[in-house]
Amino acid sequence: MVDIAPKFNALLVFIEHRFYGDSMPFGNNSYKSAKTLGYLNSQQALADYAVLIRSLKQNLSSDSSPVVVFGGSYGGMLAAWFRLKYPHIAIGAVASSAPILQFDKITPWSSFYDAVSQDFKDASLNCYKVIKGSWAELDALSTHDDGLIEVSKLFRTCKALHSVYSARDWLWEAFVYTAMVNYPTEANFMMPLPAYPVEEMCKIIDGLPKGASKLSKAFAAASLYYNYTQTEKCFNLEGGTDSHGLHGWDWQACTEMVMPMTCSNESMFPPSSFSYKEFSQDCKNQYGVKPRPHWITTEFGGYRIEQVLKRFGSNMIFSNGMQDPWSRGGVLKNISSSIVALVTQKGAHHVDFRSETKNDPDWLIMQRKQEVAIIEKWLEEYYKDLKQN
Amino acid sequence: MVDIAPKFNALLVFIEHRFYGDSMPFGNNSYKSAKTLGYLNSQQALADYAVLIRSLKQNLSSDSSPVVVFGGSYGGMLAAWFRLKYPHIAIGAVASSAPILQFDKITPWSSFYDAVSQDFKDASLNCYKVIKGSWAELDALSTHDDGLIEVSKLFRTCKALHSVYSARDWLWEAFVYTAMVNYPTEANFMMPLPAYPVEEMCKIIDGLPKGASKLSKAFAAASLYYNYTQTEKCFNLEGGTDSHGLHGWDWQACTEMVMPMTCSNESMFPPSSFSYKEFSQDCKNQYGVKPRPHWITTEFGGYRIEQVLKRFGSNMIFSNGMQDPWSRGGVLKNISSSIVALVTQKGAHHVDFRSETKNDPDWLIMQRKQEVAIIEKWLEEYYKDLKQN
Repeated sequence: MVDIAPKFNALLVFIEHRFYGDSMPFGNNSYKSAKTLGYLNSQQALADYAVLIRSLKQNLSSDSSPVVVFGGSYGGMLAAWFRLKYPHIAIGAVASSAPILQFDKITPWSSFYDAVSQDFKDASLNCYKVIKGSWAELDALSTHDDGLIEVSKLFRTCKALHSVYSARDWLWEAFVYTAMVNYPTEANFMMPLPAYPVEEMCKIIDGLPKGASKLSKAFAAASLYYNYTQTEKCFNLEGGTDSHGLHGWDWQACTEMVMPMTCSNESMFPPSSFSYKEFSQDCKNQYGVKPRPHWITTEFGGYRIEQVLKRFGSNMIFSNGMQDPWSRGGVLKNISSSIVALVTQKGAHHVDFRSETKNDPDWLIMQRKQEVAIIEKWLEEYYKDLKQN
Repeated sequence: MVDIAPKFNALLVFIEHRFYGDSMPFGNNSYKSAKTLGYLNSQQALADYAVLIRSLKQNLSSDSSPVVVFGGSYGGMLAAWFRLKYPHIAIGAVASSAPILQFDKITPWSSFYDAVSQDFKDASLNCYKVIKGSWAELDALSTHDDGLIEVSKLFRTCKALHSVYSARDWLWEAFVYTAMVNYPTEANFMMPLPAYPVEEMCKIIDGLPKGASKLSKAFAAASLYYNYTQTEKCFNLEGGTDSHGLHGWDWQACTEMVMPMTCSNESMFPPSSFSYKEFSQDCKNQYGVKPRPHWITTEFGGYRIEQVLKRFGSNMIFSNGMQDPWSRGGVLKNISSSIVALVTQKGAHHVDFRSETKNDPDWLIMQRKQEVAIIEKWLEEYYKDLKQN
């Protein structure tokens, strides 16, 4: 957005979502209970944006200036939904890596972890097999008398571990997030990482001696995610800080953003199912609320999205990179002449929204050009309409 | 709706708006304070409809059954807004006498009372002049020592009046509501009334001796509204019950449904302006809240409605009768091939939604047929789409 704003003489406005960053409607009490957290939801955020944009335009005496909304990931969902719900305020939406179909039973629940696994399998079949086999080794260690000490040593933890689950979660996060940010250039979105980090992880695994344990190989691969800069002497696997501000997301996941996920037998993760009952109980324990698994599809739709949007929507870009596991819950096909899916095979989580670099591959340069051209068309039509009326 | 449902083999569902009728979310405490009343708003009502319709269809195993929403007056606004916000749930909306443009500065604030006045002027210029002149006579009486007694006597009140304003409000209500329900047949919507009651009121006024006071003529005309059945021996002008359930509406008017109205010099009512400051203070006093005059247009749009709906909406009927003063805030022109305005010169407040009678004029029969034909087209397209996918 920063790169292309000058082309449009555009004012860039980043509207912070309430309950994230500094936008705490009840100050330090904002996260205190369901009573205050009740105001943390996507509909409220969209209404905030509507009020803010309108008020801002009025204050700037620019009532007829067209507004295009942009967002990636959850922000991409909000951008798409904003265009759907507030077409009188935004003339178009660019929704990057927006998994608006990851709800209810629209997208198969196993698709997310299958996609992560596919990334690793595509990089190296051996790599995929090593990771897939590492969980059993970790489980086996947990039954040893000195299992925790062994795992702590193997994972170079700063402090002795209290639970083997911490090691499991640590590995898990590394593989999932690295798949998401499997960018074509060196980047620093979740963590600093080299270009195509999944390939790099697999190179590490494939390069280790055959005799080494699968778990030690998995650890070495995960270390790339946590320590690409080689500055960590040891790792803190437990009691991490909420660096990605995910506490707010936990609340949203427990109320409206219910995205059931499972691991199939074909994935590189231990097979698992989704129990709404257990999930619901966890939410009840943590926040005293019951999740509403059908709410998002009721409020924003999702089933038969092509037919609904074809008749009803316009001016939307859904961009997805197939390296990103969230792509599986995205809109991957053109819906109409003005609702377009831009899919890149080598793209990752909202890679199009990252700043231009000298090393950007052609397909990425091309994708960004397409987006600019489409937005230009929206503006052209808007001004044409404006003149005629 | 009851008349045409069999043509469609349709299930009719009347969804009661929360905080009206028996739908009290906090029982007897529902109207206690702004804390509970906060849940009384149009967005919440629309969300309720969405959840209920979806759940009902699931329970009836009729997920693919198309839903058309109907509403008159405020209900018509809700129907139109529901189609805009929930196109995945309703395939179309019939919005009768829905003044969705009566907000902010879209429609001139004097248009409502000018329209009431036009009805009376069209019936008889003398009638309009008599009513226009009656207010000054009432004001003059209020300065007499025995003014209240005189007014009580003239208005045949059951109890002596405490305020001349009661007589004023009583007349005012009669003229406004009679204009709204200036139906072509005998009807009983707000009150039992003859066909074209505005004409009947004016016949009463024009039939009285020239020497009679304007106020007594206005009273006689208003009596038609309150006593067409000739069963009232006296009138209760003060301390009426909330027979139309308007307490809830008062709250909505003080929060979101802010519709500024004024009386121009050309209207038959005493000229008046709208002071947001005074209105705001009244709301503060009554409920402890501040009105949000731009909220409805922010949430649902309204400005440049033609351009927005043309690009974005589909499958809507806006029907209006020009006798109805609310028509002035309605959509009176076709917006696209699938967003149609049905305007009848002799129609009144959602007359198309009233049951068929033997005396219905041709234009009304025709209007209803048009509505059925349009809905049939929506269904046809829906089923065609459904088969293709």
